[in-house]
Amino acid sequence: MRKLADKEITDISGVYGAGLCCGIKTGATNVKRDLAFVYVPEAVSCAGVVTTNKFRAPCIYHTEKAIRTGQIKAIIVNSGNANAATGEKGFEAVKQTAKMAAELLNLQPENIAIASTGIIGVALPVDRLCSGLESLLANPKTNFGEQVTEAIMTTDLVPKKIFIEKEIAGKLVQVAGIAKGSGMISPNMATMLAYLVTDAEVPQELLQTMFSEAVDRSFNMMSVDTDTSTSDMALIFSTGKVSGVVNYGDQLQELIDEACVSLAKQIARDGEGATKLIEAQVIGANSLSDARAIAKSIIDSPLIKTAIHGADPNWGRVAMAIGKVNTANLDAARVEISFAGHKVFADGKPLEFNREQIIKELKQETVVVGVDLRVGEFSAIAWGCDLTKGYIDINTDYS
Amino acid sequence: MRKLADKEITDISGVYGAGLCCGIKTGATNVKRDLAFVYVPEAVSCAGVVTTNKFRAPCIYHTEKAIRTGQIKAIIVNSGNANAATGEKGFEAVKQTAKMAAELLNLQPENIAIASTGIIGVALPVDRLCSGLESLLANPKTNFGEQVTEAIMTTDLVPKKIFIEKEIAGKLVQVAGIAKGSGMISPNMATMLAYLVTDAEVPQELLQTMFSEAVDRSFNMMSVDTDTSTSDMALIFSTGKVSGVVNYGDQLQELIDEACVSLAKQIARDGEGATKLIEAQVIGANSLSDARAIAKSIIDSPLIKTAIHGADPNWGRVAMAIGKVNTANLDAARVEISFAGHKVFADGKPLEFNREQIIKELKQETVVVGVDLRVGEFSAIAWGCDLTKGYIDINTDYS
Repeated sequence: MRKLADKEITDISGVYGAGLCCGIKTGATNVKRDLAFVYVPEAVSCAGVVTTNKFRAPCIYHTEKAIRTGQIKAIIVNSGNANAATGEKGFEAVKQTAKMAAELLNLQPENIAIASTGIIGVALPVDRLCSGLESLLANPKTNFGEQVTEAIMTTDLVPKKIFIEKEIAGKLVQVAGIAKGSGMISPNMATMLAYLVTDAEVPQELLQTMFSEAVDRSFNMMSVDTDTSTSDMALIFSTGKVSGVVNYGDQLQELIDEACVSLAKQIARDGEGATKLIEAQVIGANSLSDARAIAKSIIDSPLIKTAIHGADPNWGRVAMAIGKVNTANLDAARVEISFAGHKVFADGKPLEFNREQIIKELKQETVVVGVDLRVGEFSAIAWGCDLTKGYIDINTDYS
Repeated sequence: MRKLADKEITDISGVYGAGLCCGIKTGATNVKRDLAFVYVPEAVSCAGVVTTNKFRAPCIYHTEKAIRTGQIKAIIVNSGNANAATGEKGFEAVKQTAKMAAELLNLQPENIAIASTGIIGVALPVDRLCSGLESLLANPKTNFGEQVTEAIMTTDLVPKKIFIEKEIAGKLVQVAGIAKGSGMISPNMATMLAYLVTDAEVPQELLQTMFSEAVDRSFNMMSVDTDTSTSDMALIFSTGKVSGVVNYGDQLQELIDEACVSLAKQIARDGEGATKLIEAQVIGANSLSDARAIAKSIIDSPLIKTAIHGADPNWGRVAMAIGKVNTANLDAARVEISFAGHKVFADGKPLEFNREQIIKELKQETVVVGVDLRVGEFSAIAWGCDLTKGYIDINTDYS
């Protein structure tokens, strides 16, 4: 598997996109891009997942329906306004956007996925958005992927993208993706968006299965602050250019997994106020759900997040986070805990360890917390970040 | 119902207790009390609940067994050392403590509840504890309740106690209690302890039922940081002095509920780094479990905790926290949200509201977040606190 750091999502053949500033992100000095599209006219299939939050933004209703048709050919995404909790007007705005984009691209509204991220409870300036769309889609076959990656950012500090390729059955297969992480600009909700493309030819149903599995292992195992957004959305297109690799499903799955995991880790590392990526590796569990729940419990624990921020090898808090999960077959006396590969706890009591060396490891930008439950064969990995005063600042004094 | 602010737990007839410094809390200048007992020799019953964390301190195993016998007559509690994750030695220490206390009080070890709170993974200095016990229990019929309340504190800023009384069936019934909240002194876990006494005569099984219900409505609806301790414990004694009130179960339940809720609120208000008590009141739910889950989701959300710390009426984050709960019958369009009694969100969109006035209310020491789901008749209340830089300080730089 090769990672191509300089390539954009639009470097996959048949994938187009661009972004501009249409004036949704207000402020006199603000000339940040806030509107973008991804256009895959020849897409053979498109799969996706949306938030489970019961307060869903209008765009989520529209896009979920579009995913079900399997015929999405384009994504229209704006930042700066989430168009959420705006009553009937919000639904109208989505309808209008989808209709306009469909006309400009010679498609039907149900071929268009819509996403909005930013401030909530404020009417979306849909006129600005529509005139932005007119310029943007006047010549849609453009390849400005970096503009798209930038246009979906809110308070993200760095753009998040991935481009990987691998030979499968003698053919080069590519998977590329972009994502945005959580950001508050005003009374707002954390929002995660991710868009991926592969040139492998994958039929609709299989693509949905593979993508759901990848999302479960990546975005669903990542958390900045335990709060589930109302607008989360992840989509993947198949351009269908590389045929005949579907029979090598495992390798293709691996490639899609890797792209999703890379984006998930980029989001966690750039979590609000974060200085470190925390990776919780759980092995030896009695079931997959136990392994996943314990890995999530570790990266969600504020006591672990603060301890790691302070570079303290606090295995007691890790034990607490393991124990608070409602698992069926945990044997506390068998559990082993390690930091950066150094075992610190086993047989129900702490081990002698080189504290200075582990503290040095905990000061790195990536901290691995390892847990071996020693009761089964299941494993899981989750990603989070440390909890810092930066998070408090961003979310206390944002208005 | 009358609240008597100056009374201690040992002001209930037949309840004894005292505390001293036996040297478990180390440090040259440290002369804080770290060992205490509560002794109710004529207790007719004792009920209790312990943590659900699977990593349980040895004292929890012992005390759970003692609760099952229904014959607890005394509690021995130390602070400064949790005697948790110390292997076989930890279990030995509990055995030794229970044996010694039983001998000094002329009881059996299973009549003694044991609790430890403080640093984990460090051997309990059981010799110091035992010589402390010898002095403390030489004359056990003492009434120094304030010493007990102080001796169980770790990093709590204020002692937590309650003393209420009410006439039931023409007889004065009293319920008194003490508690400690979450505190980190070194690599450690948050710990909650609560001990209550009533003079009402309540048989064992009924007392357990009533107390479990009260705990469910109070301590189980309170959270400082979502992390479940390995040593949580709550116990209640009945001295049996006031007979004939059991038939007025509702009124007695109300009194026990009130005592538990008061202690739970005191713990939440004194949460690490907290400046405010947050009370989430959920009504109109379709089931009790929905109401409870949504109330807990609100007080657990770091985005709500930080917003309220900044005195911002961020109803969007409240909507997010409601929506992220896996409820069966939520209708987002019916939900109403209020701050301090002022409705800010209804019919799927924000209402016009006096922002300045609500900000003023949010700057108070207690903030009430109200939610009406408008789909049923169930309600629940949960208590939490704001998330501040103080919490980060306490839990990042504690060693």
